[in-house]
Amino acid sequence: MANELTPRATDYSQWYNDLILKGGLADYSAVRGCMVIKPYGYTLWENMKDVLDKMFKDTGHVNAYFKDVLDKMFKETGHVNAYFPLFVPKSFLEKEEGHAEGFAKECAVVTHYRLKTDPNNKGKLMVDPEAKLEEELIVRPTSEAIIWNAYKDWIQSYRDLPLLINQWANVVRWEMRTRLFLRTAEFLWQEGHTAHATSEEAIAEAEKMLHVYADFVENYMALPVIKGVKTPNERFAGALETYCIEALMQDGKALQAGTSHFLGQNFAKAFEVKYLTKENKQEYVWATSWGVSTRLIGALVMAHSDDQGLVLPPRIAPLQVVIVPIYKGPEQKALVDEKVSGIMADLKAAGISVKYDDSDNTRPGWKFAEYEMKGVPVRIAIGPKDIENGVVEVARRDEKTKSSVPAEGLSEHVKNLLEEIQQNLYNKARAFRDASITTVDSWDAFKSVLNEKGGFLSAHWDGTPETEEKIKEETKATIRCIPLNNTAEEGVCVYSGKPSKQRVLFALAY
Amino acid sequence: MANELTPRATDYSQWYNDLILKGGLADYSAVRGCMVIKPYGYTLWENMKDVLDKMFKDTGHVNAYFKDVLDKMFKETGHVNAYFPLFVPKSFLEKEEGHAEGFAKECAVVTHYRLKTDPNNKGKLMVDPEAKLEEELIVRPTSEAIIWNAYKDWIQSYRDLPLLINQWANVVRWEMRTRLFLRTAEFLWQEGHTAHATSEEAIAEAEKMLHVYADFVENYMALPVIKGVKTPNERFAGALETYCIEALMQDGKALQAGTSHFLGQNFAKAFEVKYLTKENKQEYVWATSWGVSTRLIGALVMAHSDDQGLVLPPRIAPLQVVIVPIYKGPEQKALVDEKVSGIMADLKAAGISVKYDDSDNTRPGWKFAEYEMKGVPVRIAIGPKDIENGVVEVARRDEKTKSSVPAEGLSEHVKNLLEEIQQNLYNKARAFRDASITTVDSWDAFKSVLNEKGGFLSAHWDGTPETEEKIKEETKATIRCIPLNNTAEEGVCVYSGKPSKQRVLFALAY
Repeated sequence: MANELTPRATDYSQWYNDLILKGGLADYSAVRGCMVIKPYGYTLWENMKDVLDKMFKDTGHVNAYFKDVLDKMFKETGHVNAYFPLFVPKSFLEKEEGHAEGFAKECAVVTHYRLKTDPNNKGKLMVDPEAKLEEELIVRPTSEAIIWNAYKDWIQSYRDLPLLINQWANVVRWEMRTRLFLRTAEFLWQEGHTAHATSEEAIAEAEKMLHVYADFVENYMALPVIKGVKTPNERFAGALETYCIEALMQDGKALQAGTSHFLGQNFAKAFEVKYLTKENKQEYVWATSWGVSTRLIGALVMAHSDDQGLVLPPRIAPLQVVIVPIYKGPEQKALVDEKVSGIMADLKAAGISVKYDDSDNTRPGWKFAEYEMKGVPVRIAIGPKDIENGVVEVARRDEKTKSSVPAEGLSEHVKNLLEEIQQNLYNKARAFRDASITTVDSWDAFKSVLNEKGGFLSAHWDGTPETEEKIKEETKATIRCIPLNNTAEEGVCVYSGKPSKQRVLFALAY
Repeated sequence: MANELTPRATDYSQWYNDLILKGGLADYSAVRGCMVIKPYGYTLWENMKDVLDKMFKDTGHVNAYFKDVLDKMFKETGHVNAYFPLFVPKSFLEKEEGHAEGFAKECAVVTHYRLKTDPNNKGKLMVDPEAKLEEELIVRPTSEAIIWNAYKDWIQSYRDLPLLINQWANVVRWEMRTRLFLRTAEFLWQEGHTAHATSEEAIAEAEKMLHVYADFVENYMALPVIKGVKTPNERFAGALETYCIEALMQDGKALQAGTSHFLGQNFAKAFEVKYLTKENKQEYVWATSWGVSTRLIGALVMAHSDDQGLVLPPRIAPLQVVIVPIYKGPEQKALVDEKVSGIMADLKAAGISVKYDDSDNTRPGWKFAEYEMKGVPVRIAIGPKDIENGVVEVARRDEKTKSSVPAEGLSEHVKNLLEEIQQNLYNKARAFRDASITTVDSWDAFKSVLNEKGGFLSAHWDGTPETEEKIKEETKATIRCIPLNNTAEEGVCVYSGKPSKQRVLFALAY
């Protein structure tokens, strides 16, 4: 099998692409910048969706049963899902100036609603010039405009607030340089859009959702994050504050894993969304929006995987355990089959997803490599000698170690092992991340650490967009975030030498 | 509350629109022909998705646990989900001629990828003429073209077949006349696309999925359907055979609730998808596609609801039971609260979704009307006198009857009642449907039954597209289907008087 990956040390970027393709997560498509998400990759997204959906609907209580979630929904606490149109009329985009500037430059524009057969070109179609739209439609790059136009009708009084709605959808941003999962012209995401009576409540909501994201990324994706706020330069177009979680990839580059925005009254004013207060006054409402996307799958791959293939955290892996039989001839096979059927039943009863790969057109060695490539966390091999000795061979994908384990009590062992792998992945990523935060106090140190070690640079910055811009021009490094609850510390800007009140985190980023 | 619906008898069409809006299922949007699916309506769609997804993944075993589903997925039986691009290059649409003709006339065309600020119009945006795409992109009206282009790379040998993939997605068809849920420019659906080694296998797949749809619509939506095939005129663009399920609405019009297509080798040939057989020969593969959409929500509403509001089948209702307290003063309230908390726990333990509406800003009568409008199948009212007598008042939405029921064993009672309501809705719809199939043997009878009674007309047809077309022109009636396993019966065409071998079903349709 042609499963060779380019080693990370040779070309990290090529390794990533190889892995996405050979791991069967996605494929290039004929449409520029778009990709096909293959079933294995889509299952990862479904698993993420499942967990996040429950977290949104029932904030904090991840394992709530569906019916409970609905109960909450009807109590009008929690977030509920809805679906808004794909198309944004051009005039809607114009209404919030910053928003328009941010998104107009990279959007897909629908101008016509019909094709016709080309009279000069047999079998070909052409745009029908008579089917031109009066107003162009933009394929949503994000849905603030279309959603706030609907909220105008939905919000009348304080009784209608807070309005907490989430949407799972596809969006399109016409990126010039694209990359599987990390940056594609079309991507899948969720976008929460909430409306509140007060500024404080909206800020609390934006912060709450940031914590939900951090919880998900750390505890399910096994990826430590730094919570912070963006500088004004890096804010979402139309936001007063952008909260973010920043993760670190194995090549020392940062990756923004999720954002939550406090939008102030910008969209309420643009779309005239007012509510009647308890005191009978008309006030503009306060807004937030927040989102994570299929980009998280790219982050997951980049954070944990190795030169043999994917390494997936058990809590969101599409498959947790694979069992491979080792045998010669049908008699031994029957013996193994019987043993495995008991093991399968035990594992399933313990809530573990497991596959028995007894296909006979490939050899065990081939299967081992295949499941390593797919990142299945635990592999069990079992043959007649193992059965005689009352053991099985258990291999863990994260450490690539094997051990002989008693067949008795195996499901308990595997359950604990999956948990251990989950923790181990997190701890490794955490240790790497922590070791990759370097305090720098001079411009020379900044440049040399950035080029030689990478990771996050904790440095003083004078707080001006000009300095931020110059640092970016000279080094490509951006301010990833100002950490939440940052320590106040007097110092001088690493670039300009001007006074600074705190350190911020710089990095090269995806 | 302004919850008055236009009665069905006055204006069925207006009743439907009122109900969609006042029941909180959807809202009009500012984008022509598109709608906003509100949380209550979206939950219905999520419930449908949930059930169908499991049926697709594990055909026939609806209640399979998620992990089992995944296990099946890895055994490469069952259907798996994936995601393909939103955009179809124009040249792809051209490749299958019939397909192109069917969809080119009603599609959204992306011609540009950027807006810019309009120099002559402060604050306005305009399409940037320099950002014209070399090849126009069509927003997918269906995904055969984009998916078969991907399958070309995925299918090499008989080992890759069958390929059974499903996609949940939004699609756009630029319909001239639109209607909430039933026909919108953008809608949500699932589309299955499968590839097979033989014609027989593909036909069996198309038929299997038709049965899955019928199973879902009858057993979850409580809506009886007739399974059949379409006439060549009414086939999906690009199909050799279109299977369909047809349902009947309360006004006597038919509604196509789902279709499954045998596509032959049309797409395999258009996209050059061949496989190596066991005998080492190159052959084109055989295809199917099948889909149901948010239109099902429209069917659900039209089939069961009444002049008081929605009537929802318990198996997919977002909320199954609502409890309303009847009390005067805080002491009585505390008494009721305590009793209700026990009832809630019991109902939830029985897997029933339940809400306690103890909001104090509306009166019980208002709440009763509200939950009738929302179609909650069972309402429980409880006050101090009920508690004294050890009973509660149980009202069922379908029959609008109330009865006093012992509080002891209530959850068992409610569980049975929900099942009874589910069956009752099906039986009522079934009786109505059966009474609405009329055998007609003359053109006069055809016209008078169609105009006065409506429903399905079982009539002889000479089998020609010309006659079909003329009947449509004169009466607007179409052939809904030729029922599966239709009885052979010699006769003469109701319109042309020419010989006919079987009766087919005509109706006016949505």
